[in-house]
Amino acid sequence: MIRTGFTGAGLDRADHLRLDEAALAELAGREGAAMLRLDGHDPLVDDEGALVWDALAALEAEAERIFLGLAEERPLFAPVPRVEIGRPAWGVFPILSLMSAQDAAIWGAARSLIEWHNRHLFCGRCGAPTRVYRAGWGRHCTGCGLDHFPRVDPVVIMLAEHDGHVLVGRQPQYPPGRYSALAGFLEPGESIEEAVARELKEEAGVDVTGVRYVASQPWPFPGQLMIACIGSAASADIVLDTNELQDAIWVDRAGVAAALAGAPDAPFAAPPPFAIARTLLQAWVDARVDGAADGLAPPPGAA
Amino acid sequence: MIRTGFTGAGLDRADHLRLDEAALAELAGREGAAMLRLDGHDPLVDDEGALVWDALAALEAEAERIFLGLAEERPLFAPVPRVEIGRPAWGVFPILSLMSAQDAAIWGAARSLIEWHNRHLFCGRCGAPTRVYRAGWGRHCTGCGLDHFPRVDPVVIMLAEHDGHVLVGRQPQYPPGRYSALAGFLEPGESIEEAVARELKEEAGVDVTGVRYVASQPWPFPGQLMIACIGSAASADIVLDTNELQDAIWVDRAGVAAALAGAPDAPFAAPPPFAIARTLLQAWVDARVDGAADGLAPPPGAA
Repeated sequence: MIRTGFTGAGLDRADHLRLDEAALAELAGREGAAMLRLDGHDPLVDDEGALVWDALAALEAEAERIFLGLAEERPLFAPVPRVEIGRPAWGVFPILSLMSAQDAAIWGAARSLIEWHNRHLFCGRCGAPTRVYRAGWGRHCTGCGLDHFPRVDPVVIMLAEHDGHVLVGRQPQYPPGRYSALAGFLEPGESIEEAVARELKEEAGVDVTGVRYVASQPWPFPGQLMIACIGSAASADIVLDTNELQDAIWVDRAGVAAALAGAPDAPFAAPPPFAIARTLLQAWVDARVDGAADGLAPPPGAA
Repeated sequence: MIRTGFTGAGLDRADHLRLDEAALAELAGREGAAMLRLDGHDPLVDDEGALVWDALAALEAEAERIFLGLAEERPLFAPVPRVEIGRPAWGVFPILSLMSAQDAAIWGAARSLIEWHNRHLFCGRCGAPTRVYRAGWGRHCTGCGLDHFPRVDPVVIMLAEHDGHVLVGRQPQYPPGRYSALAGFLEPGESIEEAVARELKEEAGVDVTGVRYVASQPWPFPGQLMIACIGSAASADIVLDTNELQDAIWVDRAGVAAALAGAPDAPFAAPPPFAIARTLLQAWVDARVDGAADGLAPPPGAA
């Protein structure tokens, strides 16, 4: 299995305890129970780059909180502050680069949930206020009684492959030189494979067949499931949707390898290590298979 | 690629037209433009089992509607009736079994969107009413201005494999004799592979490694993305979560093949053809690979 960013939290989420108020009270009172210290929903780290945890007693009894899970026997919680929703990801990239994979995964889950709470303070069916329930893994409508559950938005992110090259694109807001895999939200009524084909067609005019799954990761800005795939393109022709992309280029294996290595003469600047676009590019380079019509062999350990 | 239920709608969703009011008006006025006839959000079919379409003029000018896409050059729309949300799937299974795969996919997308609209009549951030926008692929808050987009809930559905057997489970509400792949909602902060491992552990006490993606499909009850996987179990021991499952059993290849064939002496009754659980069981049978520790070879055409 390919290791991806924001995975490997290593917590026992203990779903069976979420509705058990007595068990949750015992956990909150346990020696070592800890609350994640945050700046809004941004992470705070100590001198070693580790997340900062406070004793749980510091929390007001009535405040909303999330039971993240058990780290061995240690119960971990996060607060639910009121935050500005929809903030872009870039601001926390420098601090993320300092954090361990495990800490990034724990914080990522908390960030997704906090943003989700802030987007669901009222019931979408009736408009009445909601209150936290299920230990922070749900909200309950105080009006009509509807239960609301955390939202995860599946996003397909993919390479089209043609004649030993893959397609990477550039959005206007990217840092200078950055190109990445194309991506888009999967819509109701689509399979992963259909969404991959639709997005490549919409954004770059590229038709693909034989879509293969490679890897997945959660993306906490604010709560996507990134699903990385590769498809085979019949042609290298590009018809760019300039509302979505500033540019799209085909890059061969040596070019992608140079980008991943950060070589000064690389044809583009690669995405950061915690982004699955980079994992996907690395998997394609490692597979060392040219773009045959019947496609990429599964990367080592991926299938 | 494995063909799954509720896929193959074959429509051009024409995303670039959704915010183009002039283009939408032209489409709605086009000869052949059609509105899906529904019973609430259930499908209606004619004597041949085909969906029923009405001329678009029958629609009130102010009614909410969804632009589903173009079938060749024919614009297809669906209404947004007020419906009871959260109704179980079983009621429409008989009619679904009459429908073509394409019609099931077109209706499925419409059903998911209709239910989503009914769950998002008010803004989750501020509680104000929302109105339809983006040609039915969004709602806009009349209070704070927040845009809301259709929700798709990723669900992992999986077989654990051990020593030539796979694990299937039974929920209390299933029809008599029915067993199926275990499944559960993917949560914020998880990869697909992590969710598969967590759900098998929670529901059946089974530890898996080497999780492999097999196929995906949309599931319109009300709007899931079903992600089918197989993982390798180190042991056949089962610890059942009786809140989730009534029973779970290991079945060998001959037993699964008998179930898929509907044999009277099969060890269980298989799920229906449009459910990806059946696709997954069929892929495992077709692969004809025993449960080696390094796992199932990709089914023909799947990888």
